[in-house]
Amino acid sequence: MIISKDECLRFFNENQEFLIVSHEHPDGDTLGCAFALCEALRLMGKKRAFLCADEVTKDFSFMTDSFSPDRLSNPVVVCVDVADDALLGPVAEELRGKIDLCIDHHMSNTFYAKSTYLVDRAAACEIIYDLITALPVEVNRYIRNCIYTGISTDTGCFRYQNTTADTFKAAAELTEEGIDAGLINKRMFETKSKSFLQLEMLARETLEYHYDGKCAVITITQDMYKKSGSSEHECHPITALPRQIEGVLVGAVFKENEEGKFSISVRTEEGIDASEICGRLGGGGHKGAAGCRPDCTYEEAKELLLNSVKKSLEGLK
Amino acid sequence: MIISKDECLRFFNENQEFLIVSHEHPDGDTLGCAFALCEALRLMGKKRAFLCADEVTKDFSFMTDSFSPDRLSNPVVVCVDVADDALLGPVAEELRGKIDLCIDHHMSNTFYAKSTYLVDRAAACEIIYDLITALPVEVNRYIRNCIYTGISTDTGCFRYQNTTADTFKAAAELTEEGIDAGLINKRMFETKSKSFLQLEMLARETLEYHYDGKCAVITITQDMYKKSGSSEHECHPITALPRQIEGVLVGAVFKENEEGKFSISVRTEEGIDASEICGRLGGGGHKGAAGCRPDCTYEEAKELLLNSVKKSLEGLK
Repeated sequence: MIISKDECLRFFNENQEFLIVSHEHPDGDTLGCAFALCEALRLMGKKRAFLCADEVTKDFSFMTDSFSPDRLSNPVVVCVDVADDALLGPVAEELRGKIDLCIDHHMSNTFYAKSTYLVDRAAACEIIYDLITALPVEVNRYIRNCIYTGISTDTGCFRYQNTTADTFKAAAELTEEGIDAGLINKRMFETKSKSFLQLEMLARETLEYHYDGKCAVITITQDMYKKSGSSEHECHPITALPRQIEGVLVGAVFKENEEGKFSISVRTEEGIDASEICGRLGGGGHKGAAGCRPDCTYEEAKELLLNSVKKSLEGLK
Repeated sequence: MIISKDECLRFFNENQEFLIVSHEHPDGDTLGCAFALCEALRLMGKKRAFLCADEVTKDFSFMTDSFSPDRLSNPVVVCVDVADDALLGPVAEELRGKIDLCIDHHMSNTFYAKSTYLVDRAAACEIIYDLITALPVEVNRYIRNCIYTGISTDTGCFRYQNTTADTFKAAAELTEEGIDAGLINKRMFETKSKSFLQLEMLARETLEYHYDGKCAVITITQDMYKKSGSSEHECHPITALPRQIEGVLVGAVFKENEEGKFSISVRTEEGIDASEICGRLGGGGHKGAAGCRPDCTYEEAKELLLNSVKKSLEGLK
């Protein structure tokens, strides 16, 4: 059932015990939502605890360090920024059928909760902020920092296309009231681990250009994870790199999985359809970003991909 | 003479011909100011032209491509985002004493113009936007794109500490009315030249850690510029890198100049004074970022710097 903002507010006002749940591999948005909400509920005199399948990384220690959960006897269960209950990971099983409310911004939400409050905003934290300011709570710096973390991380610090006027308005309000943007931005956007730097160097050494520099390919192997002490979780910025190179229309990153097979992520410039390129190899996705996992060797996969890229580049003329 | 906003508006309403001047090595803010202002003046039926000591790079072609200057006979001269007339570069000489108005956001402004309109904002473009919305002009998408470019580049896309609630409010308004943020962000923040990538790889290969990883050093040589086809102008993101590494308190970058000597830029975490570190080598700067140019060999310079870093690290305890 889809519910309104008023119904959502009533839910928080009327219930007394809350279990707030984030998705697995938690990011700034799901955690910002959860801890801002927990703090607002604490200020309202409610009892609350937090659940997530994975441990929260130390990047978010400013949220967790001062958090002490309440003992709950019979809580309502609220998922934040979770589009599908499969994304809850290992805790999905014990929660199935017991999730009372989901607050989310993904239009792909599968409505697994008894009630869903869904709003199309850049970050789920924008929705939570909007709710908290309508609850009988004095919003404090901790809440603002949580919300800012969600908004800034889900928009690539206001850089992605999902950033709207509402996003900037929320950021203006948070900044006006006082946040630790310097510390948060440094932690979220300006800090690189030594192992990531090492992985990036190894990966960049494999950079190759094809078709007059219109296509760039980078390969990341299991061996590189071992050598660098890094892991697939840190790969994300490398995935974006090939297409960021001047003149490159199609950027592809080959990532070796544990079975020695390669998944390929493709990013393209406007005018070239990444999902078409990956579709020819049995994959799919969006126009600007897509992926595939061809069941063959690295060399075969590369040949298949480059042929597909060639076809799409030819279609440009 | 410092003038008010009303006096500034009167200046634009009452004069008919304007020469708008940007600082040398022009960046997004000075250019955004200049071209937004030129367009507003055109819409007011005024004549205007643009002057800058250096050519505008193709990053800003969306501003310049559609710009055609008017022929001016006796214009008033307006400098935008220029703190000191020395920053006008080679055109400073011909303009000296003839600059009628300076619009600026640097509190270090030297008041070289007959009149100065100075406001403490993150970007000079915020001031220009504020002025243009008070002129009898319908603000169009071109103007908004120019202003957004200045605001986003001068704040590192809302990431630097200078970002205020006013910055976000301006961005909200611009976004609400319609801008090409996707294209501008891609061009300003997401595009890397092949030569820069190459330079960065060569520079990163020199990365070394000292004092248990608390100090990281990178070296950029003239030879690397030659090998990569890059130049010192592209160095900026590399200068920031060492201090971004997790656990690093002092990041230093050695850059070889044309005479084979090295300048050193130092960036530090809170609690360690970069100007103190560089001061011991005859340089100076701010607490978080400073520089020096010791007159000695690379090896000697490195030894001097590391000794100075050691002293400051010892002071931490």
